[in-house]
Amino acid sequence: MNTLQFDDTRRLRHLLTLDGLGGERIGALLDRAAMLRTAFAAAGAKPRPLAGRTVVNLFFEPSTRTRTSFELAARRLGAQVVNFDIASSSTNKGETLEDTLATLEAMQADAFVVRHKANGTPARLAASARHAAIINAGDGNHAHPTQGLLDALTIRDHHGDFAHLTVTICGDILHSRVARSDLHMLRALGAREIRLCGPKRLLPTAEECAGAIITTDFDAALDGSDVVIMLRLQKERMDEALVQSESAYFERYGLDEKRLRRTSRDAIVMHPGPMNRGVEIADAVADGPQSRIFAQVANGIPVRMAVLTDLLDP
Amino acid sequence: MNTLQFDDTRRLRHLLTLDGLGGERIGALLDRAAMLRTAFAAAGAKPRPLAGRTVVNLFFEPSTRTRTSFELAARRLGAQVVNFDIASSSTNKGETLEDTLATLEAMQADAFVVRHKANGTPARLAASARHAAIINAGDGNHAHPTQGLLDALTIRDHHGDFAHLTVTICGDILHSRVARSDLHMLRALGAREIRLCGPKRLLPTAEECAGAIITTDFDAALDGSDVVIMLRLQKERMDEALVQSESAYFERYGLDEKRLRRTSRDAIVMHPGPMNRGVEIADAVADGPQSRIFAQVANGIPVRMAVLTDLLDP
Amino acid sequence: MNTLQFDDTRRLRHLLTLDGLGGERIGALLDRAAMLRTAFAAAGAKPRPLAGRTVVNLFFEPSTRTRTSFELAARRLGAQVVNFDIASSSTNKGETLEDTLATLEAMQADAFVVRHKANGTPARLAASARHAAIINAGDGNHAHPTQGLLDALTIRDHHGDFAHLTVTICGDILHSRVARSDLHMLRALGAREIRLCGPKRLLPTAEECAGAIITTDFDAALDGSDVVIMLRLQKERMDEALVQSESAYFERYGLDEKRLRRTSRDAIVMHPGPMNRGVEIADAVADGPQSRIFAQVANGIPVRMAVLTDLLDP
Repeated sequence: MNTLQFDDTRRLRHLLTLDGLGGERIGALLDRAAMLRTAFAAAGAKPRPLAGRTVVNLFFEPSTRTRTSFELAARRLGAQVVNFDIASSSTNKGETLEDTLATLEAMQADAFVVRHKANGTPARLAASARHAAIINAGDGNHAHPTQGLLDALTIRDHHGDFAHLTVTICGDILHSRVARSDLHMLRALGAREIRLCGPKRLLPTAEECAGAIITTDFDAALDGSDVVIMLRLQKERMDEALVQSESAYFERYGLDEKRLRRTSRDAIVMHPGPMNRGVEIADAVADGPQSRIFAQVANGIPVRMAVLTDLLDP
Repeated sequence: MNTLQFDDTRRLRHLLTLDGLGGERIGALLDRAAMLRTAFAAAGAKPRPLAGRTVVNLFFEPSTRTRTSFELAARRLGAQVVNFDIASSSTNKGETLEDTLATLEAMQADAFVVRHKANGTPARLAASARHAAIINAGDGNHAHPTQGLLDALTIRDHHGDFAHLTVTICGDILHSRVARSDLHMLRALGAREIRLCGPKRLLPTAEECAGAIITTDFDAALDGSDVVIMLRLQKERMDEALVQSESAYFERYGLDEKRLRRTSRDAIVMHPGPMNRGVEIADAVADGPQSRIFAQVANGIPVRMAVLTDLLDP
Repeated sequence: MNTLQFDDTRRLRHLLTLDGLGGERIGALLDRAAMLRTAFAAAGAKPRPLAGRTVVNLFFEPSTRTRTSFELAARRLGAQVVNFDIASSSTNKGETLEDTLATLEAMQADAFVVRHKANGTPARLAASARHAAIINAGDGNHAHPTQGLLDALTIRDHHGDFAHLTVTICGDILHSRVARSDLHMLRALGAREIRLCGPKRLLPTAEECAGAIITTDFDAALDGSDVVIMLRLQKERMDEALVQSESAYFERYGLDEKRLRRTSRDAIVMHPGPMNRGVEIADAVADGPQSRIFAQVANGIPVRMAVLTDLLDP
């Protein structure tokens, strides 16, 4: 929970985490996203509610999908987007992060989309911002709130209500900001059961994941699941996963067609990407009828449009 | 020839190569380019046929002129352009090229402009694309079709009909995708004689270049030529050119004013750029009255506009 | 002074330096900037005088604020902006700078914003340009004219007339293009007294700075100053500053609250950024009531808009 993201009237001023956002507010953002998705799928002139506004992509870590998704979302809404190349920026010249922010704010930037490897950097910038909105596009292993929202929209599109759902998240939970934001989202929307599965040393403490079932047994976790969210295994985590090879990992924690049969009849499979095919997921599953992996990507655009308009054009 | 680039009704769906495109279709693209050139030179509001469309520049090799030319062509037509920085992309994280494409397609990208050092990458992406158009912006030594088209427009602007033309291409033909696309274009448009000239080890086989005259004698090749296309000599090819130095290469295969007198009275000189002045071309020729080198660059914009509108707004 | 930047009718054709520009012309640019600032602060539709025009950012040195400031200024005026990435450009392939310029001009680029470490590069490009306007965004230690203009606007906003002003510039004057452009601006606008202060080996010759007072005594320089412009100390200049450490530099040439009391009652503090807090300026001063450091950044946008419209839409 981060009180920084609300103003005095409890309006959303920044988006730093889904923790503490509440099911009603998340639901309203999803409604707005679904509305924008319809509006932009229709023929004819599109709304441009952010015309004249400036959005800065402030990425301290490289990213394919998230940066491009935010860029397209903002530009389609009519905003100017500046991609701020950190490698060539003044933060290499001893300038503080706060001064970089203040400099760009002085140029009338209205929102900053921030990715950083250190937990809390977006919150630190939100504490320092004068008028601009800060949107967390992933910080360390802390949070990735727009991923949580697009996952929520993808689940809602298929299953509708969350109250009867069993959701399994499998992989390197410990280092995953996606898992944390999904967990906050699933709790807020009232999912019936949340199962977190992975190699022992890649699982968080029960304390951190209160209310979730933690297990190392993937087959058991899959039984009757309505949603399976597979996480990417970073190669550098292989040792901590206590496995010898990618195929050894796949054998224990990879999702293939046979394993998928353990889930409920209308279960869906999700993955935040980029996928390691053959490591955490089999081709037949990634490309199969239950996969919603590219639907997630597609939902990323209207979800980010919804967040941007909620913050900049409420 | 690549049947992948046509749909069932023989409409162009991707642009991968000029091989097999046919003189009529190439002529129609040139007509469209000339029409767009006029429309955009006129005062007043410009057409924006690609408003609301998204074009992704997917460059796996760095490029100055081609990327910028496509970017300006697409943006002047009203499209959103995303420059996809491959160095910082998920293809470094083990994601397949096909998944990168599918991810960007899911974000409603309508066209991909692809450059890659490996022959056939654009075709591979075209085979995988769901709805987006793939435009080859240069793959290995295979093809560079928009360069072929802009060369065609530049020649047509000056000479009109191709049927009476002798065209010489000189330099490192073997490694040149420009030479190959020019060859396909010249054949399709019915050039009378095509001469390919260069150091022996930088010439292709007669089989590959059926119908063209292959020679190592630059002076003889120039005799009576109406068009001379000079290719860039990559420094790393110097050994294969069997020359000791840049000046030794220039002596045998460089185009200077004296040599230029061997060509026909109204011959034009072309170069795809970037030029190595003093290696393959003398300043006096590059900047002389017969040079069309910057006219080629200028024609690149309407030619790419023509390709984009043909594929996206037929 | 650079006659290259005027056409035959003494209209501004390029902006290379403030040297020789004259107080009247500088004043007119500031008036235009102030007018644009008002127009863009107002609600409602904004003017787009550069719609259909193309501005190329040609940065051979990395830059945060200047590139982004020019990009936003040009885009808010309706221009297309292309950021030309030099690291991946053809200038690495042996192409001359002039050919790179001619290539981009052939693509209908209307203006080039140029930063380069070598003095005179923008002038060299201006000498070679066919129709495009060249704007110097900083060359070596020679000039940074738009910084001079935005500093002028910031001073004028606070003090109005320059005739009664004492202005101190402190730091590495020798290597500073900002100091040189400020000096030209202050002379042209008739500042009463200009004081240049810094470590002995980082001061220019009296000859170069005719009319300015040169001193190594910062306290004396501050006495009665109405404007204090602090320059960034590059770490690599520490040796030349003949100081052992950043704190030793700060002790002699850093601006803290105590020192600031030596200035006139309504003095303002400026810095071109990025700041080295604790090296040349104390937090309490940078963030204090007399600081105009982020006002400078804000003024950068309308000043660059004024330059762009003056050159492209006179």
